[in-house]
Amino acid sequence: MVNEYYILKAILLAQENVRKGCGGPFGAIIVKDDKIIAQAVNTVTKDNDPTAHAEINAIRLACKVLKTFSLEGCVIYSSCEPCPMCLSAIYWARIDKIYYSANCIDAAQAGFDDSFIYKEMTLDIDKRKIVEERLCETEGKRPFELWQESKNKIEY
Amino acid sequence: MVNEYYILKAILLAQENVRKGCGGPFGAIIVKDDKIIAQAVNTVTKDNDPTAHAEINAIRLACKVLKTFSLEGCVIYSSCEPCPMCLSAIYWARIDKIYYSANCIDAAQAGFDDSFIYKEMTLDIDKRKIVEERLCETEGKRPFELWQESKNKIEY
Repeated sequence: MVNEYYILKAILLAQENVRKGCGGPFGAIIVKDDKIIAQAVNTVTKDNDPTAHAEINAIRLACKVLKTFSLEGCVIYSSCEPCPMCLSAIYWARIDKIYYSANCIDAAQAGFDDSFIYKEMTLDIDKRKIVEERLCETEGKRPFELWQESKNKIEY
Repeated sequence: MVNEYYILKAILLAQENVRKGCGGPFGAIIVKDDKIIAQAVNTVTKDNDPTAHAEINAIRLACKVLKTFSLEGCVIYSSCEPCPMCLSAIYWARIDKIYYSANCIDAAQAGFDDSFIYKEMTLDIDKRKIVEERLCETEGKRPFELWQESKNKIEY
């Protein structure tokens, strides 16, 4: 199916989610070999889960369906440009390509300030709004040492 | 309890996770009013979920425990500097402050390339490794219009 079909379907999911009062105006679909593997909407308020954006929900569902933690060979269609959390999740999931419709300016106008978080990412740690304090540097290296020594680790 | 207590506990969780072969070398704890609300480890490979970083797991659990999608008044202790996905999730969850131990350089040395994703965030969309293509711009604004018109929405 053409890409427009899947993106319009993601947009319809987003609209339906608002109409039903189930969560934010966002929908996402993950497709592999021209087959829909997972479709999801934003369920932040319904599920009391600030990470439950449409793309994150779709990634989690697609991985469950495909029984894997890597979505190589998959593409994602999102009704809106992914926020930094979702974009990073797409990188971690190794998705091949992103199609989106609304952008982060449209999102900000509707009260979803992804662009604020994008800007925070580009700042040095000590300039960010949420303060980050480093403690116990030496002890913090130990888990990585154990990881590198470990014989039974599954890399990802 | 002093901050060092909680961060060392998060580090111990990370170490235990490696020893058990359950997932990546990461642990996180969410504390409110000097009480542990949630503690979690990385379960990416165990749960087939690329979003199941320690901080994301801890946020989801804390929200479940507190029955809310906002963790205002909470602080997070993470064995490692949060990756961009987790940092954004911390912003969305409205956590007050982040304590961490290892940093993204330590993580990269152990094979976890958070800094690559941080760099991607700072690039213009057309310069990023994962291609993002915009489609159906006009239709994509409709979910936001519905959201703004909606009387029964729960803002977050």
